Amino acid sequence: MSKPLYFDDLKIGDTFQTATHALDVEQIKAFAQQFDPQPFHLDEAAARESMFGGLAASGWHTAAITMRLLVSSGPPLANGIIGAGGEIEWKAPTRPGDVLQVHSEIVALTPSRSRPDRGLVVLRSNTLNQRGEVVQILTAKLMVPRRTS
Amino acid sequence: MSKPLYFDDLKIGDTFQTATHALDVEQIKAFAQQFDPQPFHLDEAAARESMFGGLAASGWHTAAITMRLLVSSGPPLANGIIGAGGEIEWKAPTRPGDVLQVHSEIVALTPSRSRPDRGLVVLRSNTLNQRGEVVQILTAKLMVPRRTS
Repeated sequence: MSKPLYFDDLKIGDTFQTATHALDVEQIKAFAQQFDPQPFHLDEAAARESMFGGLAASGWHTAAITMRLLVSSGPPLANGIIGAGGEIEWKAPTRPGDVLQVHSEIVALTPSRSRPDRGLVVLRSNTLNQRGEVVQILTAKLMVPRRTS
Repeated sequence: MSKPLYFDDLKIGDTFQTATHALDVEQIKAFAQQFDPQPFHLDEAAARESMFGGLAASGWHTAAITMRLLVSSGPPLANGIIGAGGEIEWKAPTRPGDVLQVHSEIVALTPSRSRPDRGLVVLRSNTLNQRGEVVQILTAKLMVPRRTS
């Protein structure tokens, strides 16, 4: 485990890189059956006829894998990765066989005015596939505790 | 099944309401184990000591359930619910025993300039619990086909 990072330890421009996650057909269909049961996430033939042109993971599946990678091997934020929200953009489909990795950068740091024990960290996370293509950009607002002296 | 809705069928201010989904401890822990293994999503005692003050679902779990409700019983968009991205805000924790429902409203409609066969629909979806509290606001950009005559 890396040493936990507090708000005061972070600088704009700090970058982090996670481990990788290999996606397969079974994972894509299992997630879709539970949370996004649309033909292009469930059935190869239907997916070929869709605007995806082939089986693609639900965007929410890509987001969930991104979170898994951030929690397991992303920035070791004190108290964990706790988001108030953010923006998400799906740039390209995620496919069976893709190997995903998350590259993150701190883009803003704002001490909380109402809560002196924490700050707001904006973390931009690009989720890349094995060809280095960005499949998702997540710009998340995270609550991170301050060091108390 | 309702009749599929094309871009041209939609108006700003149109509203939609989904069925409900009942959340329990097992679902919360199963999702967290796979995608967001942090103590406040996995363990009651650890969660009580956290800023959540008790077991809470991963925000991505709330998002995934919201998608499930939209796909199964939300606006019957032609070609399905296909998002390019959007903004997400978690307003309150989602708890074991919560019964979630999604109330959606069309807030913007923009015909595509480059692709005359489709338009961009901005759908704001509030996910509410059984007390009517908004736990999540998702403002999603959806691609919806136009009627071809």
